[in-house]
Amino acid sequence: MKVLKTKILECANIRENQIVKVDSFLNHQVDVNLLNKVGEEFSKRFSDVRIDRILTAEVSGIAIAAIVSQYFNVPMVFARKTESVNLSEDVYSTEIYSYTGKRNYKIKVGKNFLNKNENILIIDDFMANGKAAEGLIDLVDQAEANLMGIGVVIEKGFQEGGANLRSRGIRLESLAIIDSIDNNEIIFRD
Amino acid sequence: MKVLKTKILECANIRENQIVKVDSFLNHQVDVNLLNKVGEEFSKRFSDVRIDRILTAEVSGIAIAAIVSQYFNVPMVFARKTESVNLSEDVYSTEIYSYTGKRNYKIKVGKNFLNKNENILIIDDFMANGKAAEGLIDLVDQAEANLMGIGVVIEKGFQEGGANLRSRGIRLESLAIIDSIDNNEIIFRD
Repeated sequence: MKVLKTKILECANIRENQIVKVDSFLNHQVDVNLLNKVGEEFSKRFSDVRIDRILTAEVSGIAIAAIVSQYFNVPMVFARKTESVNLSEDVYSTEIYSYTGKRNYKIKVGKNFLNKNENILIIDDFMANGKAAEGLIDLVDQAEANLMGIGVVIEKGFQEGGANLRSRGIRLESLAIIDSIDNNEIIFRD
Repeated sequence: MKVLKTKILECANIRENQIVKVDSFLNHQVDVNLLNKVGEEFSKRFSDVRIDRILTAEVSGIAIAAIVSQYFNVPMVFARKTESVNLSEDVYSTEIYSYTGKRNYKIKVGKNFLNKNENILIIDDFMANGKAAEGLIDLVDQAEANLMGIGVVIEKGFQEGGANLRSRGIRLESLAIIDSIDNNEIIFRD
């Protein structure tokens, strides 16, 4: 997706040849015009399947999934990490290992918001090692819903998450795949 | 806002005559069609002022602020609670007391995303004791930006947050104000 790649090249900060900071438009400040183009692109890429619900996880997926769900005209649900009085006890729950936090944490979705046989599209900001996506897939499996695919805005192609999911036959659409970062320069996959 | 009040009466679960659970449409699963009406309503109510940026806080404000910001055509920034590699060290930071978590926690915004003399609109899901809003106002003050107002979807009128803010001359627009809950029945303010 050209407009996204241009934005990444213009605005992303690279740290330690590995961390791609996109806090100016994706996961702290949010460029809603760009997200609308992201939503339009996902709706094109998944136009061959029926989607009943969009699933994401706290925190950085929420703004993206909210805007994207407008293009599918379906509700969005975000798996909660934080304990909340707004979450009932009747949940699907799974553990995710966080490399940045160096610990496991739980994510949960109320059982009434993921239904058997529904078609689910997972949306997230990044695909790196794929642990968050695997947690979300586990929630979809627990609900006996159908995973129709995963859409991420930026895939770090030099980490194993995307390749692992594709090798399992899971449909993964990444709008920008970073193949490598050399001397703080981003090289996209064609 | 009639459509919102109807939705609350239809879908909210009341617990202990105090907690209004709206996880089916506002802060766990998200009804994006309703949020678009919310965005339209806020844009009408604040149509007399120029807004440069929308500010909210993790977690439940994000989806709402993202959709609402489309109607103002401005970027949205969410103050982060969770530690993130995506947040630089150069931040405005403040502490908020959480009644539900029974502890203080910090919220932070990158200094480059709140600028001096900018016009800021704060958006959030709930107004109860007002602690989250006060934290966000503190961030706006630290940045020497202009607080143009606060828009919340649901105000618990029986808690002190809204009254306190209005008595300080802060413009607060609440789309539904719950005056009381009796025998699990919601009474709205006219």
